[in-house]
Amino acid sequence: MKENVSKHKTAGVVETQYYTFAYPPDGLELESGARLGPVTLAYETYGTLNENRSNAILALHALSGDAHAAGFHEGEKEPGWWDNMIGPGKAFDTDKYFIICSNVLGGCKGSTGPSSVNPETGRPYGLDFPIITIKDMVNAQHNLIDHLGVNRLLSVTGGSMGGMQALQWVVSYPERVRSVIPIATTANHSPQQIAFNEVGRQAIMADPNWNDGNYYGRELPAKGLGVARMVGHITYMSDVSMNDKFGRRFRSNAKPFKFSPEFEVEGYLQYRGDNFIKRFDPNSYLYITKAIDYFDLANGKGMHELLKGIMSRFLIIAFKSDWLYPAYQSQEIARACKLAGVEAIYCELNSAYGHDAFLVEVEEQSRLIKHFLRSVTRGLNQA
Amino acid sequence: MKENVSKHKTAGVVETQYYTFAYPPDGLELESGARLGPVTLAYETYGTLNENRSNAILALHALSGDAHAAGFHEGEKEPGWWDNMIGPGKAFDTDKYFIICSNVLGGCKGSTGPSSVNPETGRPYGLDFPIITIKDMVNAQHNLIDHLGVNRLLSVTGGSMGGMQALQWVVSYPERVRSVIPIATTANHSPQQIAFNEVGRQAIMADPNWNDGNYYGRELPAKGLGVARMVGHITYMSDVSMNDKFGRRFRSNAKPFKFSPEFEVEGYLQYRGDNFIKRFDPNSYLYITKAIDYFDLANGKGMHELLKGIMSRFLIIAFKSDWLYPAYQSQEIARACKLAGVEAIYCELNSAYGHDAFLVEVEEQSRLIKHFLRSVTRGLNQA
Repeated sequence: MKENVSKHKTAGVVETQYYTFAYPPDGLELESGARLGPVTLAYETYGTLNENRSNAILALHALSGDAHAAGFHEGEKEPGWWDNMIGPGKAFDTDKYFIICSNVLGGCKGSTGPSSVNPETGRPYGLDFPIITIKDMVNAQHNLIDHLGVNRLLSVTGGSMGGMQALQWVVSYPERVRSVIPIATTANHSPQQIAFNEVGRQAIMADPNWNDGNYYGRELPAKGLGVARMVGHITYMSDVSMNDKFGRRFRSNAKPFKFSPEFEVEGYLQYRGDNFIKRFDPNSYLYITKAIDYFDLANGKGMHELLKGIMSRFLIIAFKSDWLYPAYQSQEIARACKLAGVEAIYCELNSAYGHDAFLVEVEEQSRLIKHFLRSVTRGLNQA
Repeated sequence: MKENVSKHKTAGVVETQYYTFAYPPDGLELESGARLGPVTLAYETYGTLNENRSNAILALHALSGDAHAAGFHEGEKEPGWWDNMIGPGKAFDTDKYFIICSNVLGGCKGSTGPSSVNPETGRPYGLDFPIITIKDMVNAQHNLIDHLGVNRLLSVTGGSMGGMQALQWVVSYPERVRSVIPIATTANHSPQQIAFNEVGRQAIMADPNWNDGNYYGRELPAKGLGVARMVGHITYMSDVSMNDKFGRRFRSNAKPFKFSPEFEVEGYLQYRGDNFIKRFDPNSYLYITKAIDYFDLANGKGMHELLKGIMSRFLIIAFKSDWLYPAYQSQEIARACKLAGVEAIYCELNSAYGHDAFLVEVEEQSRLIKHFLRSVTRGLNQA
């Protein structure tokens, strides 16, 4: 990580790094039994690993996120997706902690996914890419954490799908995780949540350009992905935040065509939908949403049984207006922690931003997280 | 309406009827200023108009509904869409009342819509069909009510878009409406509601078979309409009712293909989506959802100002788990009635069925509606 004086309140100018492992013939064993290799994970780090290697925090991203969580890429004007939370003096304080953010397995931002070249064919995997799960993403990250020389993470955190990975980390590798901060997430996807993802997948697969996943180097299923993204965006906002942002206002430059976007909210969604193809691979959208839908931390059994004996501490954050990952799902995690005798704090914040709140409700989240991390660090120093 | 002894607890065997009016050159003047003609409305009636012509109730349907609200069509096994509410002894008691249900202008179930033949070209209108509004639908119905010899309706009712029409009736023709029963509806579409409709429209228009609306006699944009329908179905159910109905259960006959529907909820949505093309015209979906989105009863002004002086009585029904048309929107109508000095009863029912509740919560709705209609009839007899 390079320093940049003009951006001194951020993590500065950063570069995405890559770690490749699990070379064939062994590869990475997936939950499905399939073996995938080699596997590359794109990742970034912010701050400095201390001598004891005890200040590392793993931050995990949501569906469309990437490894670029904070700071700026050389020549770019937009910082990483969680820059308001990761940086000097911020919630995840880069003056104190060494923060790692890894792009997920199955993604399209430098990690191995369906758009990667299949070494067996020399062409992109497409649908030959194996089905992956949240557990597979976490197992891949486990290799990265080993590679970075971190034995025990001070914390694992993330919102939405990032929170699922955080929960899976503490269950798969409890001895490697001192604390976990799952935000706006769930221990399993409800049928309504599955249904919204399925609409997105069907929209992509309905696009003839999708062509059973074989579209690399051809025309892309941009319209299908656009519709999927539009559905997503609706679920990320709240009724109130949409009212505040758009109301029933018309666009000033609405085209005369009957079914062109006229309302501001239509223009916003169409813009977001149209542009998504520039930064996201439709097949990754299929694979990652499927991994999310499969996610069931306790696999139908009692979550508190699963959590018994876990020494990691939990800070669970939910948002009142988040109707995609409603607070009751976070409450279920908190209840299971209590039943299992696991130390857990549950905080329900009064944001109006819906699911997006984990990306924008900086102040209250930061206060909670700073205090929690101090307390976990203190416990560490006393131990 | 014919009698049928084996179906004596229903409105019996019924036939859809058609009324054509507004012949060119005049036609029906639309809110946009365009003129449309001739206009046909498909409708059905149940029960008998009394001598005073004072027992007529107009029941209006939602987005995908039709004129067939009750009883059975000859040879069919499924009754009309509100058969549990319209029939002998039911909420809208055909032993007492004369119930009229009209398919909306812009629809595809016998009323003039984009799939109708444009008399100027001899081919289906397609996108040459003019933009229509809820007010236009009501104005067309006004012609039908005149035709049926009903001067003053005992009540106008409907759920969802049917409720919007009911509200527009009382505002456009207050002297023609003794009472109004808007159910699970709103006085204007919120940006979130517009957004869900826009996703459906974009899904249809993204389908290359849509072909700018020129698909009649060719391959239909079935996939696009299917995705639109899937989104709709999610919004019609509640988180709780989806959990009750599907949970996270897998389908027993899930195909081995990676992205085929595996969860029961996926199979249900795909089935509903795939089959929608058999009974609904994609262009009608565009026009009707647009009419819904444009709907703004008070047009941004104070609703209570608009309602002042109206003598019609209101029974407003909302459902706690309806997140598509949340109860607060019905409360706003009730508040405006109170401010305007209009007699209004507001009832919020404790159903778990989400927006679908207006179609399935028979018992409590029936009790409320029967009592209300008796009271309106009593007021009529005393006057």
